[in-house]
Amino acid sequence: MARRLEEIVARFGGQLRGDGKIVITGLAPLQTATESELSFLAHPKYRRELARTRAAAVILAPEFAAACPVAAIVTPQPYLYFARVSQWLAPPPPEAGIHPSAVVESPLPASVSVGAHCWVGRDVEIGEGSILYAGVKVYPGCRIGRRVIIHAGAVIGADGFGFAQDGEAWVKIAQTGRVVIGDDVEIGANTTIDRGALDDTVIEEGVKLDNQIQIAHNVRIGRHTAIAGCVGIAGSSQIGARCTIGGGAIILGHLRLADGVHVSAGTLIAKSIATPGSYTGTVPAAAHEEWRKNFAHLRHLDALADRIRALEARLAELEKK
Amino acid sequence: MARRLEEIVARFGGQLRGDGKIVITGLAPLQTATESELSFLAHPKYRRELARTRAAAVILAPEFAAACPVAAIVTPQPYLYFARVSQWLAPPPPEAGIHPSAVVESPLPASVSVGAHCWVGRDVEIGEGSILYAGVKVYPGCRIGRRVIIHAGAVIGADGFGFAQDGEAWVKIAQTGRVVIGDDVEIGANTTIDRGALDDTVIEEGVKLDNQIQIAHNVRIGRHTAIAGCVGIAGSSQIGARCTIGGGAIILGHLRLADGVHVSAGTLIAKSIATPGSYTGTVPAAAHEEWRKNFAHLRHLDALADRIRALEARLAELEKK
Amino acid sequence: MARRLEEIVARFGGQLRGDGKIVITGLAPLQTATESELSFLAHPKYRRELARTRAAAVILAPEFAAACPVAAIVTPQPYLYFARVSQWLAPPPPEAGIHPSAVVESPLPASVSVGAHCWVGRDVEIGEGSILYAGVKVYPGCRIGRRVIIHAGAVIGADGFGFAQDGEAWVKIAQTGRVVIGDDVEIGANTTIDRGALDDTVIEEGVKLDNQIQIAHNVRIGRHTAIAGCVGIAGSSQIGARCTIGGGAIILGHLRLADGVHVSAGTLIAKSIATPGSYTGTVPAAAHEEWRKNFAHLRHLDALADRIRALEARLAELEKK
Repeated sequence: MARRLEEIVARFGGQLRGDGKIVITGLAPLQTATESELSFLAHPKYRRELARTRAAAVILAPEFAAACPVAAIVTPQPYLYFARVSQWLAPPPPEAGIHPSAVVESPLPASVSVGAHCWVGRDVEIGEGSILYAGVKVYPGCRIGRRVIIHAGAVIGADGFGFAQDGEAWVKIAQTGRVVIGDDVEIGANTTIDRGALDDTVIEEGVKLDNQIQIAHNVRIGRHTAIAGCVGIAGSSQIGARCTIGGGAIILGHLRLADGVHVSAGTLIAKSIATPGSYTGTVPAAAHEEWRKNFAHLRHLDALADRIRALEARLAELEKK
Repeated sequence: MARRLEEIVARFGGQLRGDGKIVITGLAPLQTATESELSFLAHPKYRRELARTRAAAVILAPEFAAACPVAAIVTPQPYLYFARVSQWLAPPPPEAGIHPSAVVESPLPASVSVGAHCWVGRDVEIGEGSILYAGVKVYPGCRIGRRVIIHAGAVIGADGFGFAQDGEAWVKIAQTGRVVIGDDVEIGANTTIDRGALDDTVIEEGVKLDNQIQIAHNVRIGRHTAIAGCVGIAGSSQIGARCTIGGGAIILGHLRLADGVHVSAGTLIAKSIATPGSYTGTVPAAAHEEWRKNFAHLRHLDALADRIRALEARLAELEKK
Repeated sequence: MARRLEEIVARFGGQLRGDGKIVITGLAPLQTATESELSFLAHPKYRRELARTRAAAVILAPEFAAACPVAAIVTPQPYLYFARVSQWLAPPPPEAGIHPSAVVESPLPASVSVGAHCWVGRDVEIGEGSILYAGVKVYPGCRIGRRVIIHAGAVIGADGFGFAQDGEAWVKIAQTGRVVIGDDVEIGANTTIDRGALDDTVIEEGVKLDNQIQIAHNVRIGRHTAIAGCVGIAGSSQIGARCTIGGGAIILGHLRLADGVHVSAGTLIAKSIATPGSYTGTVPAAAHEEWRKNFAHLRHLDALADRIRALEARLAELEKK
């Protein structure tokens, strides 16, 4: 997959500085790139690495072109440019077709790739060019868009967690909705997306889900939202478009998050959020002893507030005299 | 699966109001139900939807019967009634029998359903009518009750996490206990339940586990307890009967939770709980800047308390004069 | 697998007290051990159980030898001794060889055991004596050391979560690094370890990972570090050697944790840690009403601090007079 620098520029644009005949065999970070590797400067904080790089060439923004000691591709969005080149130079994706060990109970387009030991139940539709890695399970009736990538071990369409109480026991509510996934979605390894109870669970186009995410029944996730690993979203919540949710966050059920909401890692969201912006609710970690000393007071904040109120009253009394 | 309203009442009881000949083709929420769909009113807050519903009929409690604009099934527990009807109208469960791609090393009753790519190791027992969806793995020696439902990708009986320290290295402790699961348990997709170290890990009858839960070795979960997604329960803890544990909660090891304890989502339980009731330990999320301002003080609570104490002393001194 | 006590001492050392001819058929805790079972006293808090035990013999430290009512194996590290005996008495591990249902696209040593429905992609290397339980997936190009144990459903080498923004959409960055796992690592059920973006994700020798852990791309975990269930480690973070990380903890990306750092369960680490020791950042759980009363103040800590400051100023003013 070796390419000349000029081939890359011919394909992806940008302004070439230096020798276009240089052969590029791969991509690497500024610090470790060798003389046949292409690198990139995506953030000003790596400027120092630029001066010392031994890369064949660097993808960078116009303001850093002068400081580049080697050949360069100048472009206003170097990280995006790098992403596109990375796909072009990468090993090819899994071949289209159904692995002989997979169990597929629905007709699929020839362009779909289904890996070893996948299970695709009855009445499932999968769009052109989608890829299911090994051991993905898709329950009956689900709909998956085009160019969707689903990583190993993900489970699409298992029953939502719905029960009615009967004395001390629980009676299952049949989960008869579907999971509907839009085009260009990516789903990480061992992530689970439950089918809806009556209506569907919906993942809109362009959503990116990392590994080990749990999406409960009847959730809707808006287009181009990106969610990091280990997040849990409880039933019937609606996440807007273009949101980001940090790793390990928990979103309670029946909430609405507006478009453009950014939830910090490890944050529990217990109320709907109507205003775009960043939201956080985490505790700063400290050395264990320091934490113990400070957090003892957490359980007495109300008493602390009472004491402040009492002090204010007594002081006002004194001041009057 | 179309049924007349009178057939439903004949089977499940309740008081019919309106035309029993109406044909019901499915269930739907009040807002979206059409004229051949049965709906339900399970919570007073949806009362307004009742007035506007276009459902064929509504399952509801006696106090709402008069307000219902369409036919009704009147019952004291509408949500439970709905659950039972939902099962009756739902597509049939997976057929009994072992999928040819499954690897089953123990004899199982003919009524058990084992999905594609499941692995059931040696010396495993599974009770009548249980269902294993695709890709469930059951390690040797485990015991699974009757009518248990295990969703795709769940792992039952992997080794518990037990090691003894040998200098800087860890020496594995053989995990020779089993997982023992009672009747009528449901286990969600990609949930993991480890085998005991010496004794067993026990999930009592009627327990409901959502997706991606981790149950460590030698845990015991009491009957009819329900646990939401992404919960982790550390080794040797004992959860009582009829508890509920919210999504993403963490229960540390070697604890005992009484019967009827309800743990809020996202809460860490670090001590045993002897009294039934609800327990919470979460941080309210806020706009990021507001959070930053307030949480800076969290690391200085001890100093804040000292300042209040000093103020109290100085004020007492002044008041004496 | 019955063994005489003297055989155990001959193999693992320690000082035998009592009849070496006693036949041991298994291991059990002090409380439940029967007259053919070997037990152990690993912590002084179980001393009382020692007095009442009905075990055949007990593994214990010299200071408890005199108090032992039955035969004993005296050793300075009883828990470690127990670990070794447990392996010897345990059922044999899975047989070497590739299960016929596994899909293995790389040559492996004959001593490796690959369970049912595993997938091992192209250009994978696995060292002597490693064990993959059922349904493990190893993506192409990964390197796994010797005597590694990987439990069911784990996914090694799925794509890291890397995207560049293009307007409102996300463009995938090809993930072309590998996962490199050292010797004697153990990986729990349904744990996921992503391949690096350009460089590798590295798990050093002797690391122990529990179930449902998520390790993002380009993370490095130092030798003999042990991580409990449900932990998430974000991209490019480096965890030192001999660390322990408690269940459900979240480590943000691009951080460095020194050797010998211990992170408490449920703690979010948002900054690098340069000093060995224990770190905590959790909220103590309380009865729900108590929590509500106290935590209302959390959102007004800044105002509370302002009021204390105002009180101090007013009081100083009064004191001057």
